[in-house]
Amino acid sequence: MPVNYTTPAPADLLPVAGVRLGVAAAAIRKPDRLDLTLLALAAGSRVAGVFTANRFCAAPVEVCRRHLAAGNDIRALVINTGVANAGTGAQGWQAAVDTCAAVGRLLAVEDRQVLPFSTGVILEPLPVDRLFAALPACVAGLAVDNWHAAAHAIMTTDTVAKAASRQIEIAGKMVTVTGISKGAGMIRPNMATMLAFIATDAGIATALLEQLVREASDESFNCISVDGDTSTNDSFVLIASGGSGVDLTDACDPGYGELRRTVLAVAQELAQAIVRDGEGASKFITITVEGGVHRHECKRVGYAIAHSPLVKTAFFASDPNLGRILAAIGYADVAALDVDRVRLWLAGGGSEILVAEQGGCAATYCEEDGARIMQEAEIGIRVDLGRGHARAVVHTCDLSYEYVRINADYRS
Amino acid sequence: MPVNYTTPAPADLLPVAGVRLGVAAAAIRKPDRLDLTLLALAAGSRVAGVFTANRFCAAPVEVCRRHLAAGNDIRALVINTGVANAGTGAQGWQAAVDTCAAVGRLLAVEDRQVLPFSTGVILEPLPVDRLFAALPACVAGLAVDNWHAAAHAIMTTDTVAKAASRQIEIAGKMVTVTGISKGAGMIRPNMATMLAFIATDAGIATALLEQLVREASDESFNCISVDGDTSTNDSFVLIASGGSGVDLTDACDPGYGELRRTVLAVAQELAQAIVRDGEGASKFITITVEGGVHRHECKRVGYAIAHSPLVKTAFFASDPNLGRILAAIGYADVAALDVDRVRLWLAGGGSEILVAEQGGCAATYCEEDGARIMQEAEIGIRVDLGRGHARAVVHTCDLSYEYVRINADYRS
Repeated sequence: MPVNYTTPAPADLLPVAGVRLGVAAAAIRKPDRLDLTLLALAAGSRVAGVFTANRFCAAPVEVCRRHLAAGNDIRALVINTGVANAGTGAQGWQAAVDTCAAVGRLLAVEDRQVLPFSTGVILEPLPVDRLFAALPACVAGLAVDNWHAAAHAIMTTDTVAKAASRQIEIAGKMVTVTGISKGAGMIRPNMATMLAFIATDAGIATALLEQLVREASDESFNCISVDGDTSTNDSFVLIASGGSGVDLTDACDPGYGELRRTVLAVAQELAQAIVRDGEGASKFITITVEGGVHRHECKRVGYAIAHSPLVKTAFFASDPNLGRILAAIGYADVAALDVDRVRLWLAGGGSEILVAEQGGCAATYCEEDGARIMQEAEIGIRVDLGRGHARAVVHTCDLSYEYVRINADYRS
Repeated sequence: MPVNYTTPAPADLLPVAGVRLGVAAAAIRKPDRLDLTLLALAAGSRVAGVFTANRFCAAPVEVCRRHLAAGNDIRALVINTGVANAGTGAQGWQAAVDTCAAVGRLLAVEDRQVLPFSTGVILEPLPVDRLFAALPACVAGLAVDNWHAAAHAIMTTDTVAKAASRQIEIAGKMVTVTGISKGAGMIRPNMATMLAFIATDAGIATALLEQLVREASDESFNCISVDGDTSTNDSFVLIASGGSGVDLTDACDPGYGELRRTVLAVAQELAQAIVRDGEGASKFITITVEGGVHRHECKRVGYAIAHSPLVKTAFFASDPNLGRILAAIGYADVAALDVDRVRLWLAGGGSEILVAEQGGCAATYCEEDGARIMQEAEIGIRVDLGRGHARAVVHTCDLSYEYVRINADYRS
């Protein structure tokens, strides 16, 4: 059960003019489940993406990078679950290239206008014959109101489909931003381990779109952690179809600021949904680190806390064993950190309490207050490093028996 | 149940001339268990230590550093479990200082000749009154053949006491090396999270002893990981009493090489015992990374594998989901790693198999072989980065339901 998250209803996922979606059951790994998704984009759409920092990146990630570099007239995205097509060598590269060619033939576009995405088990070959056989069903089903089905078709260990949609008005025209994401484990920055696709019917010039996808990922998918693993396949793609008639070429254009905020909000909603549905998660934890010299050290402290199995199991147990948070701050490798200046707060259920200051327990802290907050499903940790003005936020979840069960069983 | 480890019998832990040990039940945190240990050292003993890199280091660690810097005529070590005396501010410092004074009075030595050690819960005050009340029982029980009892008295979540003992001959004289360690979670390099005390009755000059303790920790306690957390209290202390009549002042002295190897072997035995008794461990995993440009990057890859919850749960499940190891290598931040040159082997039950090469599954790999090895209790992972001649070894264990249970329950 995800922590305070439910999939929006189909009617709440607004169509994006110029973006059609189709899904199919290709039996990539298991029969009788949706595991193949096709996005067909209108001519003139622009696409930008950010991809995993993992050096063992999957073949489809390499093909995406190459096709995006070859020109920005992308016309289709094809996404399979079940097999990641990672750690598959030259054969995996060929499978990704052949998939693009197959989609290109069906949609009458060039191979290089197709971006492939895969998620699932590493080191296993992609069953391209089954994938090809199911593509015509995707094409036949292409429709603008298919976001809900697509959100389901890209799931792996997710327990709920993740989607978000917003609408704003720019110069008298309605502009829609709709997105979907998947991911529940292997979550960590640069990039978080997930697939996410956000589309808007605003037209956005390529350079601006590329800047926006980086800004959005930095404020969303690169601020979350379930287990600290960075996957081989992480991809976040932003599509601007231009179907609304609104065209933005410069960050100073009227309406761009609001569109930017809307895209960031959708990205954050999708990123936080991944943590709320984190494998085995029972708590949603927001870690705010402030008072740092620069954002980088704030993030490092945030991730040290978010990745500590001892902190995560204490949250699972609702045990205010908060010294473990101090220990994580202490090993986050912040040069010349003065621990006497560090302050730690815990927040939940509408109140925030000071836990530690001056290298020890705060005089006002009482364990009953800590125990009460630890029972909450949504908990805030706030750390002031007391050495500067930078700030960063990291979202994470607890570590439960269920996490172990899911990851011990995932392939079986 | 630890993986292939049992505590040596009392008679197998050889006394070290000049080192007497006493234990007591002080009810520091729980009644009726041994939780206080005193080591009394003969005059002329020399002591060197390495301590946690955690900036929230515990008060006793700070006091140890100060007393070691004040001169090297240490005469006693006092160790309590139950409370870490970390995150305790000025009050915690005073508690550690007062403990040294109390020991000093009982043994008629100066305060600065006493080193204090604590392990247990962070953020809680050390109950010094109960500790002081139990010290006379420690003193009354001081004996050279008490290593076995001391190994038990320093345990926290350990399921077995950890000790090792060896004897060598130098210039016709018998020299003994005996040590104890504790630790089962919060294990990570710089330093690993544990307490370890090794004593020899060789005499070793201070500078040489300080070099030896660093070398020994680098090859033992800094090569292990259970969960990637670095504690506030990690300490490894090496004692040279001189009681054997052998005196070594230079690394070139006859016999020093053999003594060095023996100390390293005892340290490695104690360090590996900690992993074998890792919280919830059911597998002992040795990760060898070779072919690196320098040792540092080999260690980084080793730790990326050792810390990956996805790798650790796959080992718990005996599931040869080995792509997760490639993913961990890929995010270990090795600059310009050529994944096509990386090779991965799995070893166990007397055989080693090539799993991956050239960016994908090895042609000779078959899953049945992988599955067979994953059933073993002792498993080797070997990675060749294919870019240099450096090498490092890291020991770790799997991640099980039991780990979560232990750490969710630890304070209750």
